[in-house]
Amino acid sequence: MQRIYDYIDAHWLEAVEDLKRLCRQPSISAQGVGMSEMVQLLAHMMRDYGIGVQVLPGPGDGYPLLYGEFGGESSKTLLFYNHYDVQPPEPLEQWTTPPFEPTEYEGNLRARGVSDNKGDIVARLLALKAYQEVRGKLPVSIKFIIEGEEEIGSPNIAAFIEHNRQLLQADACIWECGGVNWRNEPIVSLGLKGILYVQLEVRGAAQDLHSSMAAVVPNPAWRLVWALASLKDMDENILIDGFYDKVMTPDKKELDAIEAIPLDEEQTRQSLGLETFVKSVTGFEYKKRHALEPTCNICGLDSGYTGPGSKTVLPCHASAKLDFRLVPDQRPDDILAKLRRHLDSHGFSDITIAPQVEGENPARTSLDSPFAGIAVDAAREVYGVEPVISPSMAGSGPMYSFTDTLGLPTVLIGVMYPGSRPHAPDEHIRLTDFVLGAKHIAAIMEHMATA
Amino acid sequence: MQRIYDYIDAHWLEAVEDLKRLCRQPSISAQGVGMSEMVQLLAHMMRDYGIGVQVLPGPGDGYPLLYGEFGGESSKTLLFYNHYDVQPPEPLEQWTTPPFEPTEYEGNLRARGVSDNKGDIVARLLALKAYQEVRGKLPVSIKFIIEGEEEIGSPNIAAFIEHNRQLLQADACIWECGGVNWRNEPIVSLGLKGILYVQLEVRGAAQDLHSSMAAVVPNPAWRLVWALASLKDMDENILIDGFYDKVMTPDKKELDAIEAIPLDEEQTRQSLGLETFVKSVTGFEYKKRHALEPTCNICGLDSGYTGPGSKTVLPCHASAKLDFRLVPDQRPDDILAKLRRHLDSHGFSDITIAPQVEGENPARTSLDSPFAGIAVDAAREVYGVEPVISPSMAGSGPMYSFTDTLGLPTVLIGVMYPGSRPHAPDEHIRLTDFVLGAKHIAAIMEHMATA
Repeated sequence: MQRIYDYIDAHWLEAVEDLKRLCRQPSISAQGVGMSEMVQLLAHMMRDYGIGVQVLPGPGDGYPLLYGEFGGESSKTLLFYNHYDVQPPEPLEQWTTPPFEPTEYEGNLRARGVSDNKGDIVARLLALKAYQEVRGKLPVSIKFIIEGEEEIGSPNIAAFIEHNRQLLQADACIWECGGVNWRNEPIVSLGLKGILYVQLEVRGAAQDLHSSMAAVVPNPAWRLVWALASLKDMDENILIDGFYDKVMTPDKKELDAIEAIPLDEEQTRQSLGLETFVKSVTGFEYKKRHALEPTCNICGLDSGYTGPGSKTVLPCHASAKLDFRLVPDQRPDDILAKLRRHLDSHGFSDITIAPQVEGENPARTSLDSPFAGIAVDAAREVYGVEPVISPSMAGSGPMYSFTDTLGLPTVLIGVMYPGSRPHAPDEHIRLTDFVLGAKHIAAIMEHMATA
Repeated sequence: MQRIYDYIDAHWLEAVEDLKRLCRQPSISAQGVGMSEMVQLLAHMMRDYGIGVQVLPGPGDGYPLLYGEFGGESSKTLLFYNHYDVQPPEPLEQWTTPPFEPTEYEGNLRARGVSDNKGDIVARLLALKAYQEVRGKLPVSIKFIIEGEEEIGSPNIAAFIEHNRQLLQADACIWECGGVNWRNEPIVSLGLKGILYVQLEVRGAAQDLHSSMAAVVPNPAWRLVWALASLKDMDENILIDGFYDKVMTPDKKELDAIEAIPLDEEQTRQSLGLETFVKSVTGFEYKKRHALEPTCNICGLDSGYTGPGSKTVLPCHASAKLDFRLVPDQRPDDILAKLRRHLDSHGFSDITIAPQVEGENPARTSLDSPFAGIAVDAAREVYGVEPVISPSMAGSGPMYSFTDTLGLPTVLIGVMYPGSRPHAPDEHIRLTDFVLGAKHIAAIMEHMATA
């Protein structure tokens, strides 16, 4: 195995050149920029790494997906989930160097998408390359599925996975992102929260009115405020009837894992400029809420006049964007139905839920899963410190299609560190994390073959 | 008196040419457009009508005021309150003809400011002119005070009046706006509501965060929603402790006057596209709420992401603009203090009230006032139908300085009709209303001299 690590140490700079090539090519799904060029570039690069690549049309009018495969020595198959799209680079003026001109500085590489998740793609390619060059073969078969719509909510991946179960058969899956914490301890995460994203709309009079009419004309902003206030109380209890029905009580192992996560939440609190967290949680309670509890969050509020100074207006329209982060076994369609029932039964049948609802199921892999153990053991070996095991991250993604539709134990690992600024200006990775990430993939493949 | 009316009938077209001259000159206080040109033009025009005019500096850095006077036969003095500024004309594309190119069509005159309130200024000048030409003298002395900041909340008029009590001594005041209802019955209004305008601000984390943090990081949009919901319940009861303490119970005369107001609120309801008014009020209850009850209205809500589609964000800031319409004897500074106390005592000391608070006291003239009787009698004589007496309009203005600081009975009459669209595109007056408005002023002067 040391020869594999030695190869990576000797050749990672070549892989960084490939990573720069990927980062130089914009691939902004939200803006439709550079997507087909990116598919061609990445397919070509993967073929150069010896991978059999197919470009598969997305369902509907979605962006195509890249499927790749490479046979291995054992009967085991490892599936990589990645995406070739990136977030929009705006605001451009906040970048130190242009977002699509990858720049090395102080051992880092800065570019849009380098941490999320082109760095992961190339680290995985580097691990494969090491096995090919050192041993002429891989310890396990690998498959890649690389979509182009992760940054716009993966609207088509569930249908795609459903229709390609055979093609994507595997024994385990490695997710697209992850990394180390501020102490440089590798994190192995085993789940993502689900999400329900809705927009509430309220209409009043046919047009905005002079506010002197407020004595007699209903105000949709008030209707919205009252409806929202009925959804969650000041103690953060979500009041939708049945909202918590399907929430699984964490078992002892999960709570122990949460307890064991090292976390300096005091540093987080100060860096965010907060006096306290919600409900003044600290320590274990903070970590448990963050990883395991569902949310009801206002993403946006809009009504009437919001410019400078005053305008005495009675608005004709009000809207709110909400997201609910969901935990096993909540389901977005069930929560959506309960939200509608709640509004109706609380006198808010005038409040509509815009039809563009987005939803993803929560997904988790058991702490008892042998593959989770493999990922942890491999991390301990490569990083030389005790890994952190997180039962779930606080974010969301289309993981349910992999854990449940395909039935794969799935772990989140990757080349980020907490300063990587994904989705933000000056996104970057530390190249040491890139090298360690490639070795971690290589070690997992080895452990998996011999498990 | 008939000769006065005859003069007006014979010469109103000349006055309309003067009105067009005023309307051709933009005077947009909010944008600082054309203000000094307007002062010069109007001062010159008033002098042409024989009025002694002074241009007085506004307090602080405010726009100047025009003071005018013309001596009369009797010892009585009538004060006119008007303003020479207009609302911004935007949105320009919704005007049939350019807002500062006054256009006659179908017996109407269309221009920004023609109804609010340059038409009133010229109608008053026309009445004076008639007396001068027909009799060589006025039945009462008149004074004009014409400010340039009415459309931006009259921030300096109270101080100005306070410092010019002597100059503005009079026996009664005619306010700047008013007119007929849809049945062409003249309305004599006797009051305005007061107003308190505030902006509530809530801050959370130092910057917007990914909404996955919502499990632990306080959301200012939720704080705002909860605070607002604590201010008013779904039955429109304002819950601020002591809010209603100073609200005077309407006396029988006021309620009778309200009862007598002809109002087709069903037509209003349909034209606004509403299913019902608040609390399903109709008839007397509708009219009473509209004219005599205070409000707590949301003018604007703003937080987080409000663009198209979804963004999973935990906002760092939320704000709301509120206006409270006040009735005698509520005071904006008292309500502001009670609002602050309410927020503090309900756990919302984190919610700040932005320092740019605007306030005006409510003002009313008694239905028993002899001058109200004069205005009503004069209206009956000129319009040939029974006038409508309204104890108060639903809007606000700096009337308290006139009714209480100067101690003047004050009525609102003017040249508008309900279709005039003040503050909106295609603002206009019907020229028949302009002529009747001039005659009404003339009749009031005559009645006042002989009272």
